[in-house]
Amino acid sequence: MTRIYLDNAATTSLDPQVLEAMMPYLTTHFGNPSSIYSYGRESRLAIENARKSVAKILNAHPAEIFFTSGGTESSNTAIIASVRDLGCKHIITSSIEHHATLHTVEYLYHSGEVALSYVKLLPNGHIDLEDLEKLLAGSQEKCLVTLMHANNEIGNILDIHAVGELCKMYSAIFHSDTVQTVGHFPFDLRNTPVHFITGAGHKFHGPKGVGILYVNENVKIKPYVHGGSQERNMRAGTENLYGIVGFAKALELATANYETESNYIKGLKIYMMEQLKKHIKGISFNGDVLGRSLYTVLNVSFPKTEKSEMILFNLDINNICASGGSACTSGADTGSHVIRAINNNPNQVAVRFSFSKHNTKDEIDIVVEKLKEII
Amino acid sequence: MTRIYLDNAATTSLDPQVLEAMMPYLTTHFGNPSSIYSYGRESRLAIENARKSVAKILNAHPAEIFFTSGGTESSNTAIIASVRDLGCKHIITSSIEHHATLHTVEYLYHSGEVALSYVKLLPNGHIDLEDLEKLLAGSQEKCLVTLMHANNEIGNILDIHAVGELCKMYSAIFHSDTVQTVGHFPFDLRNTPVHFITGAGHKFHGPKGVGILYVNENVKIKPYVHGGSQERNMRAGTENLYGIVGFAKALELATANYETESNYIKGLKIYMMEQLKKHIKGISFNGDVLGRSLYTVLNVSFPKTEKSEMILFNLDINNICASGGSACTSGADTGSHVIRAINNNPNQVAVRFSFSKHNTKDEIDIVVEKLKEII
Repeated sequence: MTRIYLDNAATTSLDPQVLEAMMPYLTTHFGNPSSIYSYGRESRLAIENARKSVAKILNAHPAEIFFTSGGTESSNTAIIASVRDLGCKHIITSSIEHHATLHTVEYLYHSGEVALSYVKLLPNGHIDLEDLEKLLAGSQEKCLVTLMHANNEIGNILDIHAVGELCKMYSAIFHSDTVQTVGHFPFDLRNTPVHFITGAGHKFHGPKGVGILYVNENVKIKPYVHGGSQERNMRAGTENLYGIVGFAKALELATANYETESNYIKGLKIYMMEQLKKHIKGISFNGDVLGRSLYTVLNVSFPKTEKSEMILFNLDINNICASGGSACTSGADTGSHVIRAINNNPNQVAVRFSFSKHNTKDEIDIVVEKLKEII
Repeated sequence: MTRIYLDNAATTSLDPQVLEAMMPYLTTHFGNPSSIYSYGRESRLAIENARKSVAKILNAHPAEIFFTSGGTESSNTAIIASVRDLGCKHIITSSIEHHATLHTVEYLYHSGEVALSYVKLLPNGHIDLEDLEKLLAGSQEKCLVTLMHANNEIGNILDIHAVGELCKMYSAIFHSDTVQTVGHFPFDLRNTPVHFITGAGHKFHGPKGVGILYVNENVKIKPYVHGGSQERNMRAGTENLYGIVGFAKALELATANYETESNYIKGLKIYMMEQLKKHIKGISFNGDVLGRSLYTVLNVSFPKTEKSEMILFNLDINNICASGGSACTSGADTGSHVIRAINNNPNQVAVRFSFSKHNTKDEIDIVVEKLKEII
């Protein structure tokens, strides 16, 4: 039974072209990028070329791009530096952020370093911008606003420009977890009012264990991981050379093929919506599914029955990969904090299907057919 | 001109067998280890098998092994957790630690979280254990002792048992940066009085961007990188699946071949010492070079002349890789803090040669010949 992988928001397959770009650094070119001899400088050059490529694609300066071990470390760095280095004493976030954000702001709140506010959500899962402005206007302290660009579970996309303009108006620092959008949407950071964004290679057919943190040139922070002088003293530790090369290559490929691939994947999402509506009674979709939404994510609520409660289990038996929410939270058996926050309906079971360029309509047909059987 | 790589303390080549073990996870087996379906559980299994293998080799419990992005992150986690979670208010370290330790303890000192003492060094670069005991006995506060197992520049090896027993006696927490010894020496952690040790895959023919932190079961700390529930809630972020698999494989290979390889490499070190003494006047060796010392590292002081000041440059021209000290500090042009601390002789130029199983006596002969020409 062939596997159907519809959990691309959790992780994606490594593109063979990305692996090919990484291979020289996994074999012959192993020099430490911080070594001063020419063999080390070849590795350094690969990293700096990767940085330039990433910066160019995101329309940022190379000096604003730092390589990290992934999106989680990037968000930790940005949020904690905003508090400890940039003087933010009040964090405004939402209850539907990724745990990389939520657990970091809770840590700072419980250690007494910040006040913490959660902005209201609209019924479709979007951030209530009026409430955000109210919170900013009412704050006595310098604020950090941390709101994700696209929600990893329901796919809703934030109006990053509108939020950035509000932050500007109230001199707040703005961090956006862009792990679901870097490699999936065009960025123009020189014209985007944001101080920090993050990316993770494995979300767009790049390698695991590598990410980026964009730090706007107008803010100066200290490293979160202390030690050697790597990443211009901003992130210590021997560089993940092949990971960095792979990150850049994956972003290049994603950018080159953006128009075709995003349209193709969006087609799959809409096709699955239509097929589900046609064939399964009582279903609904979570988030602003046809509005400001990731083309990669479709979050479906099934009416709760004995059968639908076993839906993920039964999909798995049929070798279909889908998820109840973020993989990062799957250790906990408490269900999705995102779904609870926007649609706390005990009579429904939510399943996230997320797509990549490798999925097909045939696969969707099979999955819908299986869902009909399961439900 | 073939390259001669004598900088294996900076980084090592990836063993082809390690890459082979990583390949399935770089190609077909890309599932997110935290996903609950069977395809994710296959990745989870690979990680847990890696953890068990590492734990077995180090004679630790699997629950004591946490995978990180590298030695630097591991040391940051251990040191900062000792202060914030375990109540250490006084750090005792040495001036010849790696910057991953030094910059972390300096950060804690400057933020006012700890008092900081540097233990005295003996002329051969070893830690003065009497001074360590004096510092421990005189401390009003709970101490963290952080001393590296083997110095990365001069190769001196700490008596980890003696230091651990002292720490026990004074109820201090003991962290040892073992990045130069994990994969190079046998460990028996159940019978070693240490709370935290660290490892980095790329120091023993494993991959870059992955490391371990051993946390003794008797201490309970909080994560340093906040977010998802990976690594049993101790290190958030999607796991570096292939890196982890590669780390374990590299450690397995290093352990299986330890006797043969360590004897062979030690032979190279001693051969190079002899040849240098025979052919170059006025040289000396830094550290306890024939005593408690890494078999992989030889730190040589050349008499300072116009020519010897250009020694690394001239070695590089001849395609010979060696270093003035840690690659992690090469960004700074201030020379080695280790050499300054133990042998601050302005009339000498120190060069570190570090060996692996891939080096040969022929290579040493060529390097010594070149050194004769250069000097």
